[in-house]
Amino acid sequence: MEVILKSAIYRGRTGFLLGATLLLCGGSLAWGGESLPSWNEGSAKRAIVDFVARATDESGQDFVPPAQRIAVFDNDGTLWSEQPLYFQFIFMIDRVKALAPEHPEWQTEEPFHSVLAGDMKGALASGEAGLVKMGMATHAGMTTDEFDKIVTDWLATARHPKSKRPYTEMVYQPMLELLAYLRANGFKTYIVSGGGIEFMRTFSEKVYGVPPEQVIGSSIKTKFELRDGKPVITRLPEIDFIDDGPGKPVGIQKFIGRRPLAAFGNSDGDLQMLQWTAAGAGPRFVLIVHHTDAEREWAYDRKSPIGKLDKALGEAKERGWTVVSMKDDWKTIYPPDK
Amino acid sequence: MEVILKSAIYRGRTGFLLGATLLLCGGSLAWGGESLPSWNEGSAKRAIVDFVARATDESGQDFVPPAQRIAVFDNDGTLWSEQPLYFQFIFMIDRVKALAPEHPEWQTEEPFHSVLAGDMKGALASGEAGLVKMGMATHAGMTTDEFDKIVTDWLATARHPKSKRPYTEMVYQPMLELLAYLRANGFKTYIVSGGGIEFMRTFSEKVYGVPPEQVIGSSIKTKFELRDGKPVITRLPEIDFIDDGPGKPVGIQKFIGRRPLAAFGNSDGDLQMLQWTAAGAGPRFVLIVHHTDAEREWAYDRKSPIGKLDKALGEAKERGWTVVSMKDDWKTIYPPDK
Repeated sequence: MEVILKSAIYRGRTGFLLGATLLLCGGSLAWGGESLPSWNEGSAKRAIVDFVARATDESGQDFVPPAQRIAVFDNDGTLWSEQPLYFQFIFMIDRVKALAPEHPEWQTEEPFHSVLAGDMKGALASGEAGLVKMGMATHAGMTTDEFDKIVTDWLATARHPKSKRPYTEMVYQPMLELLAYLRANGFKTYIVSGGGIEFMRTFSEKVYGVPPEQVIGSSIKTKFELRDGKPVITRLPEIDFIDDGPGKPVGIQKFIGRRPLAAFGNSDGDLQMLQWTAAGAGPRFVLIVHHTDAEREWAYDRKSPIGKLDKALGEAKERGWTVVSMKDDWKTIYPPDK
Repeated sequence: MEVILKSAIYRGRTGFLLGATLLLCGGSLAWGGESLPSWNEGSAKRAIVDFVARATDESGQDFVPPAQRIAVFDNDGTLWSEQPLYFQFIFMIDRVKALAPEHPEWQTEEPFHSVLAGDMKGALASGEAGLVKMGMATHAGMTTDEFDKIVTDWLATARHPKSKRPYTEMVYQPMLELLAYLRANGFKTYIVSGGGIEFMRTFSEKVYGVPPEQVIGSSIKTKFELRDGKPVITRLPEIDFIDDGPGKPVGIQKFIGRRPLAAFGNSDGDLQMLQWTAAGAGPRFVLIVHHTDAEREWAYDRKSPIGKLDKALGEAKERGWTVVSMKDDWKTIYPPDK
């Protein structure tokens, strides 16, 4: 099933990708040309292109067969923004508001009361237990098809508080190019995120070109049942799997069953995934997106409550992993307005 | 990533597949020709070829885009034999024997005592709890890499008690052809089995052409940890997920995130997977392998303790699902001796 491809030919060390992803498949013919136009010339881009060139050079000693070219990407903060709050958290708040008329008891029950009063500090005061309560109230109790429609409808109408753009346009243009570049070179691209698996699957194919079966995320339990003779899968208010931190390599092993060749993250929640990838035999590629652009995006790392990047940044320096500075390495952050 | 293909051209209603899986990909050129040589002409083969022709005919109203051509296969009794015992159960018994010297307490502890004495009835008398105990003693407590090696070594040396062939040669030749035929027509083939996911992944790619990331099965929990600074994933003695019966559509939704276009099973443990597939919008294909060949394989259905086929057989007749009679529809059962 692997599509392939005369792989990208990298010429010289200047980072200039001369050509050519020759994709002769089913009669179609595609030329790659310059594949990462939103990346500035620099060590990060050079490291990516150099690694891909080596992995796809059949005559070289670092050649990797296409079946083993697995690339895993975190989502929040790596493929799209995560400020001022994780977007799925904003979805949850919007759902609490939308469902409030059916739940008069929420007017006095925390954390719902605080959320409805617009008091986020009060809502967060109920801690993880409060979060889980709100998560279950908004993510469980419907069929998988119904949940898919709820998220799709929300994404179609909700707007980011700062940019006023749809959340699916708050994705990083350079990372979209990177996903496409890796796929053109025979890589299978996966999302491995702490976010909800069914939440991400509603847009991953359209926005990232990543089909639902290549999305790994946190999940709640589900149940198969016949309703009036018609089979449905219902979402239960019980956590099944948390795909974060040490859960990421566990999720990768569970869903993919082999170690990635390349991994991309932005926070300490990705550290174990990066370690697991880096420790594989032969050359591996590990990259961290560092949020350094207060003007065009956000600037945060060691002290941020969201997307905290502390230990992983230290380990990246120690081990020579590639660190992308959004400010310096990216020409643009988001795709052009539609 | 989808490879494609001028799809199989089906001419006429005689079940004669005239041409032509033209696979022009990466410079290689392959002609499909007659793709199901081990299948007798008959209604089962006709139903398969007819469905594939309709799903891949771009000008027809039943055309399905390649990304949605998901085909799911049960393993035990559908892709390989499951008599006189599930092969993974035989692996477990062999492991108990191999590990016995390190466990003197097993000489008096059930179900180990009975297994070591060759008394299968006695072993089974300890019921599900005994089975789980034995499963954990043989499948947990090592890293994923170590377990992979244990299974691979076993498969290389163990022989089936009746045929004396390696278990990986107890696969059904007509089903191997069917897997390849579907893939040549743009289908993504998955295994969805009650068997252990990591057990099957050791041979699925080599034997079935199904890569590890397309294997769904039962699992135990695992844990990521650093051992002397080296990351490992260890297998824990706790059940994570049972991919059987109503667990099969749940597993499909969890791992694939979309409903299959075609499903293949052989027992009541597959019923919910078949129902879930059949209930999708538009044409779907559902097939049951019926073990009717006492001479070349085994003959069993409603009363068999292994691979019991009762409810699903009734439902197949009611709903017009395709039922394959191994005796009548298959020219050969197993691949030729190596």
